[in-house]
Amino acid sequence: MLNLNQRAWERVQRLCNQPRRWRVQVHQRGEVRVVDLGVEAPGGLEAGLELARVCLADLAQVNLVPQEQSPLGVPQVSVFTDHPLWACMGSQYAGWKVEGPGFFAMASGPLRLLVQKEELLRHYGLQEQSPVGIGVLESDHLPKEEVCRQIAQQAQLPPQQVALLVAPTGSLAGAVQVVARSAETALHKLHELGFDLRRVQAAWGTAPMVPVPRDGLEALGRTNDAILYGAQVTLWVDATWSELQPVAEQLPSSASLDYGKPFVEIFRRYEGDFYRIDPLLFSPAQVTLCTLRDGKSHTVGQVNWEVLRRSLGRET
Amino acid sequence: MLNLNQRAWERVQRLCNQPRRWRVQVHQRGEVRVVDLGVEAPGGLEAGLELARVCLADLAQVNLVPQEQSPLGVPQVSVFTDHPLWACMGSQYAGWKVEGPGFFAMASGPLRLLVQKEELLRHYGLQEQSPVGIGVLESDHLPKEEVCRQIAQQAQLPPQQVALLVAPTGSLAGAVQVVARSAETALHKLHELGFDLRRVQAAWGTAPMVPVPRDGLEALGRTNDAILYGAQVTLWVDATWSELQPVAEQLPSSASLDYGKPFVEIFRRYEGDFYRIDPLLFSPAQVTLCTLRDGKSHTVGQVNWEVLRRSLGRET
Amino acid sequence: MLNLNQRAWERVQRLCNQPRRWRVQVHQRGEVRVVDLGVEAPGGLEAGLELARVCLADLAQVNLVPQEQSPLGVPQVSVFTDHPLWACMGSQYAGWKVEGPGFFAMASGPLRLLVQKEELLRHYGLQEQSPVGIGVLESDHLPKEEVCRQIAQQAQLPPQQVALLVAPTGSLAGAVQVVARSAETALHKLHELGFDLRRVQAAWGTAPMVPVPRDGLEALGRTNDAILYGAQVTLWVDATWSELQPVAEQLPSSASLDYGKPFVEIFRRYEGDFYRIDPLLFSPAQVTLCTLRDGKSHTVGQVNWEVLRRSLGRET
Repeated sequence: MLNLNQRAWERVQRLCNQPRRWRVQVHQRGEVRVVDLGVEAPGGLEAGLELARVCLADLAQVNLVPQEQSPLGVPQVSVFTDHPLWACMGSQYAGWKVEGPGFFAMASGPLRLLVQKEELLRHYGLQEQSPVGIGVLESDHLPKEEVCRQIAQQAQLPPQQVALLVAPTGSLAGAVQVVARSAETALHKLHELGFDLRRVQAAWGTAPMVPVPRDGLEALGRTNDAILYGAQVTLWVDATWSELQPVAEQLPSSASLDYGKPFVEIFRRYEGDFYRIDPLLFSPAQVTLCTLRDGKSHTVGQVNWEVLRRSLGRET
Repeated sequence: MLNLNQRAWERVQRLCNQPRRWRVQVHQRGEVRVVDLGVEAPGGLEAGLELARVCLADLAQVNLVPQEQSPLGVPQVSVFTDHPLWACMGSQYAGWKVEGPGFFAMASGPLRLLVQKEELLRHYGLQEQSPVGIGVLESDHLPKEEVCRQIAQQAQLPPQQVALLVAPTGSLAGAVQVVARSAETALHKLHELGFDLRRVQAAWGTAPMVPVPRDGLEALGRTNDAILYGAQVTLWVDATWSELQPVAEQLPSSASLDYGKPFVEIFRRYEGDFYRIDPLLFSPAQVTLCTLRDGKSHTVGQVNWEVLRRSLGRET
Repeated sequence: MLNLNQRAWERVQRLCNQPRRWRVQVHQRGEVRVVDLGVEAPGGLEAGLELARVCLADLAQVNLVPQEQSPLGVPQVSVFTDHPLWACMGSQYAGWKVEGPGFFAMASGPLRLLVQKEELLRHYGLQEQSPVGIGVLESDHLPKEEVCRQIAQQAQLPPQQVALLVAPTGSLAGAVQVVARSAETALHKLHELGFDLRRVQAAWGTAPMVPVPRDGLEALGRTNDAILYGAQVTLWVDATWSELQPVAEQLPSSASLDYGKPFVEIFRRYEGDFYRIDPLLFSPAQVTLCTLRDGKSHTVGQVNWEVLRRSLGRET
C-alpha cells in the first residue's frame, strides 16, 4: 500500500525535529499537534516546499527552480508525480471545508482520505486505513482546540495521532504550496470535464512563485493568477489522442469566458460571490497532453505574462 | 575504490523495498532478481530517473527540470557527473549484447565491468571486483530464467547476487533512461574520434523528455532524436584548446552526412540496416568544450527543434 | 539553535568518508583536518556544490541547473535560503583574512562565528558556541601546520575539532563555490547601503558556471564576472516598498561607475590595486526585491552577456 498519511507523517516529524531550521512553530491544541508555517512563525521557501510535499503525501517531487523566460524576476515551483490520482486528488486537492467557532479553512492533505466527506474521493474509491492523519489548512489563523478535536473525531483518530499544518496564503510557505498546485489544477479540470483520472499515469507542472502581500484576498488573487496565467502542465495519459481530443480544448484557463483579467478583478466583478465565477476558469494556463497509447502530444493554452504583470502591479 | 556495482545495488534495494511507490514489479527468475519498470509494471518518471541513476552506478545526478525554450511542452532530463569515464563508459553505455533463446537486448549498468566483453572497457582498464552485479536491459520483454542464469555466469556471480532492471524504450521509465544519455553520447563520440576520455574531468547534459508511443521502433527513433537533435552537453577537459580543436567540429550530430531527418526516416532509408547509418551521427545536438588548462570554451552544433517537431508529429 | 558549525561538520564528514567518490583528499596538518577539493585533488562539480553547502552552513539549497538563455553553453548554479543573514553573512561571506608564513587566503564558513574578527558579525550579533569549527579557504595552496594551528587557536578549539576545506578559484570546485555567491553578494551590498539585513526573510540567486583557467587572477576575474554580469537574485524583505526604494537603484552592479568591463580589465586599469575599485561594483547583475508587507516587487539591473562573452574570450 502507498500509506499516504504515514508518508506525510514522516515529513512532518522532520519539520518538528528542527523548528528553528524550518522556521516553524510546533503547538499542541489539546493533544493535536499544530505546526505553524506562517501564521505567527516566519516560515519560508523551504518550509513551503516541505508543506507542498506533505500536501502531496510525499508522492511527488517539488522544487524551486529558475524561470528564465519570466519578466517577474522570481523563480518557479516545479512538481511531478507518478501517482497523480492519489497524490493530487487523494491528498493535495483542497476539497474539504473545515469549519468551527470563528474558524474556516479549506483543508488538503491525506487526512481527507480518512474523513471521507468528498464525492471526489468516493468516485475514485480513494481511501486508506491509517494510525495517523495529516491535514493542511490554508488559513490566516491557527485553529483552536475545539476545532482540532473535531477534526480528529472526523478522522476517527485519537487526537495525539493527528497533525495539522497551517500557513496563510499571504505567507512565503503558503504561497509556495498554492503555486505547487499546477498539476493538481489540471487534473481536477480534466475530471470536471468527465475524463477518468485513473488513466493519467504521470503529471508534471510549473508555476511562478509570485510575490504575495500579507492581505488574504490579494494573496489569494495572485496565487490563483500564478496558476491561471502562469502554470504549464504536462500529463502522460494511457489513452489515444482521439479519446482526449474532445476535452483538450477545454483544458486551459483560456477556455473560460472569465479568462483574461487578474483573479481579484473577476472576483470583484461578481461582487465577491465566488460561485458566480465560471468553474472552467480554474485550470492552468497551458497543458500538454501526451498519449501513451499512440505517442501523440498536443499543447493547449499558453502563459499570459501580461495579466501576471498586472496582477502583481509591475510596470516592468 | 568507487564500487560501482555496490552503489547501484543500494539504489536497486530502495526500488525493491517500495514497489508500489515506484510502480515497479520485482520477480525472481531462478535466483536472479528481475525488476520490471515498464514491461508489465507501469513504472513512471521517477522510476526512470532511478533507472538512469542505476545505469550511471549512482555516480551522477539525474533530474527532471523545466525546458522553457522548448516548443514541445515537456520537461527535460539533466545529468552531471565528475566521473564521466567510469559512470558513462564503465556503466551507462549500452555496449553489451545480451542474447538468449527468444531474447535480445542491449545491456548497460555496472555488471558490464564484471562481464568484460567489450573492447571499450579493456581499452581504458575499466573493471572491478564485486560481490554483486547490476545490469540494465532495454527491452519490451522480461528475460526468461535461462537468460538470467547465463548473465550471472558471465559475470561470474551466484545468481542471487545479480539484479537485472528492465524497461522498454516505449515506456515512461525507459524513455527517461535513454534521454539521460546526453553526456554519455558525447563521451562515446569523443572516444570514437580518438580522444582520451581519461582527460574529461566532468560532464553535464540535458535532453528533452520526448513523448514516446509503446511501439518499439517509433520509441527508439524519438529517444534517439531527443539526443541527436535535442541534447546539449558540456564537457570540462584537462587539456588546452589546441589539443581539442582537431576533434571539436566533428563532435555534434550535425557533423554527420545523415544529419537532418528524424531517426526513423534515416533508418528506413537504409532499409532497416542499422550498420549502414553513419556512426558519426550518434552524438548530441550541441557540445560545449571547456578546457581546464587554458580556460577556453567553445560551443559546436545546436538544438534542432524543427526535426524534433517532425519526429513527434507535432504541428505546433 | 541553528548550530551552523555542527551542520557544516556533518557535511564534511560525508566528504571525508568517501574521498574517491567526491575526488577529494583528506590530510592532517598537525591535528587539524585539511580537505583538498582542488589543489592537488581533482575535485569536481559535485565537490563544488558540497563546498558551497558547507560555506552556507548547510542552511541553503545549492544546485546545478540548466541555463537556457545563455550563449555560454554552461549550466548555472542556483542557491536559496530562508536564513539569509546567518547562512550568507554569518557563514558564506569571505570576510576573514587568514595569513601565515607564506600563506594568504580569504576565509569563509561558520568558523568565522567562533573567531569573531569581523565588524559585520558584531554588528548583527552573529556568533555561536560550538565544539567543532569548519572553515573554507579559497587558495591555490594547502595551509601548512603552523597556519592550521593558528586558526584553531583563534577559534578557541582543540585542533582535532577543526576542519579546513581548500579549493583554488581556478578549480572546478572552487569556481562552483564562488558562483554560488549570487545571493550573498546582493545581501552584502544591501548591508553596505545601510539596510538592516535582519529584515530579509529569504533569498534566491543564480549565476552561470563560467569556465575557469587554472591561473588565479584570470579565474578570479571570471568568477567575479559571473556575479557582476551574470547573477540574478531575488530577495523577500519584511518591509514596504517605500522603505526599500531609496536603496533599490544602487543595488545592481550597473550602479557602479566601474561597471561595463570584465573584472580583470578593471583590475589592471587600477594597476592591481584592489582598493581603488569602486566597492559599489560588487553586486549581482540583477536584483528583484519583493516586499512582504505590501506585496510589491521590482527588478533592477540585468544580465550582461556581452561582457561575459568578452570575459570568457568567446566569439560566439
